[in-house]
Amino acid sequence: MESRFHRELDQLRITILNMAALTEKAMEKAISALQKRDLELAEEVIQKDRDINLLEIEIDRSILKLLALAQPMARDLRFLVGCQRISLDLERIGDQAVNIAQRAEYLGSRPPLPHDPAMEELADTAMDMLRMVISSFVNLNVDQAVDVCQMDDNADELNVAVLQNLLDYMVNEIPAIQRAVQTIIIARCLERVADHCTNIAESVVFMVKGINIKHHCEHV
Amino acid sequence: MESRFHRELDQLRITILNMAALTEKAMEKAISALQKRDLELAEEVIQKDRDINLLEIEIDRSILKLLALAQPMARDLRFLVGCQRISLDLERIGDQAVNIAQRAEYLGSRPPLPHDPAMEELADTAMDMLRMVISSFVNLNVDQAVDVCQMDDNADELNVAVLQNLLDYMVNEIPAIQRAVQTIIIARCLERVADHCTNIAESVVFMVKGINIKHHCEHV
Repeated sequence: MESRFHRELDQLRITILNMAALTEKAMEKAISALQKRDLELAEEVIQKDRDINLLEIEIDRSILKLLALAQPMARDLRFLVGCQRISLDLERIGDQAVNIAQRAEYLGSRPPLPHDPAMEELADTAMDMLRMVISSFVNLNVDQAVDVCQMDDNADELNVAVLQNLLDYMVNEIPAIQRAVQTIIIARCLERVADHCTNIAESVVFMVKGINIKHHCEHV
Repeated sequence: MESRFHRELDQLRITILNMAALTEKAMEKAISALQKRDLELAEEVIQKDRDINLLEIEIDRSILKLLALAQPMARDLRFLVGCQRISLDLERIGDQAVNIAQRAEYLGSRPPLPHDPAMEELADTAMDMLRMVISSFVNLNVDQAVDVCQMDDNADELNVAVLQNLLDYMVNEIPAIQRAVQTIIIARCLERVADHCTNIAESVVFMVKGINIKHHCEHV
């Protein structure tokens, strides 16, 4: 019984890593579709979100089965509860990728806005956080998870900078208002991806150390 | 043991209802602060978010304790897993209330934008969904939960309508651009509250019937 339980835990871990890989890929493609004005790539992100959603359902089911199968010990129980949260956050990162891809389709068929370094930095920050937090889960590395939490303020600041840049721009470029607003929404999507990465990082800390750092990440 | 377990389950249910009541109150006040241009009320929402966050931590802890205390039977296990998800969604609704309140502070100290019936209807829809989904949890009422899921499309459409109205308005009212963008963000916050209510409704269906209706709510 014990060893079957741990084999199934390993399988769960692999399924979450698959889901994380699909989510990372979706975000990479959504950002690339936006930057390269690639409408086909944007459409691909939208179509493939279903795969992420199906994995979420599979993970939910297997966590419930594992909780019912055995009375898990403290660490295994925390792992299961943490996995459930991580899967929710990954699914929502997938939704943000779709959101960005939909707006990339809108923007990619219209005249481009001026390049904004803050927007590029925000996209890079969100992707760095996503890659780092997946790695912190793979290695159950608390230090790396805490680093991810600390990057979140930077994402917030970049989002505010993009908003301000676009507000300034719109005042003088009335025909670009709709494109600018769509870009503001994309920046918010990226900032939300950073938030979900922070949630995942908190779940990793919880799994490993059994402490809850939600709402006061700086106190670890 | 069995009866202690069920007493603690009842206590958990009460704590979630407290959290739900605080969240509903926060959203009511945030919307009222926006509509009545009441800066003090907005500040109150921001200050009180801490209480919601503390309840989330308490709920997390008690779910983990209950999972470890006994090997819960199928229905109790679903109740615990469902409670964990509901608490996450309630906490994020609280965050959206803070988001709306912050923007209400900005807008309340500047000239008002024209009244938009779509915005008012969106706020009403989000609040209706929140009240209904809390009631569906209290009574474990699946029909009511399914009704909430079906209201989500309406919230999405109203959000698009508000966006379009404000884009049209901004083109002719350059000095109002920043206020209009903040209002577009508020509409997105309300639409996200509707999404979280839909998630909670899905959790209620899962608790009662043991089926997962995520990603295909219409198939119940």
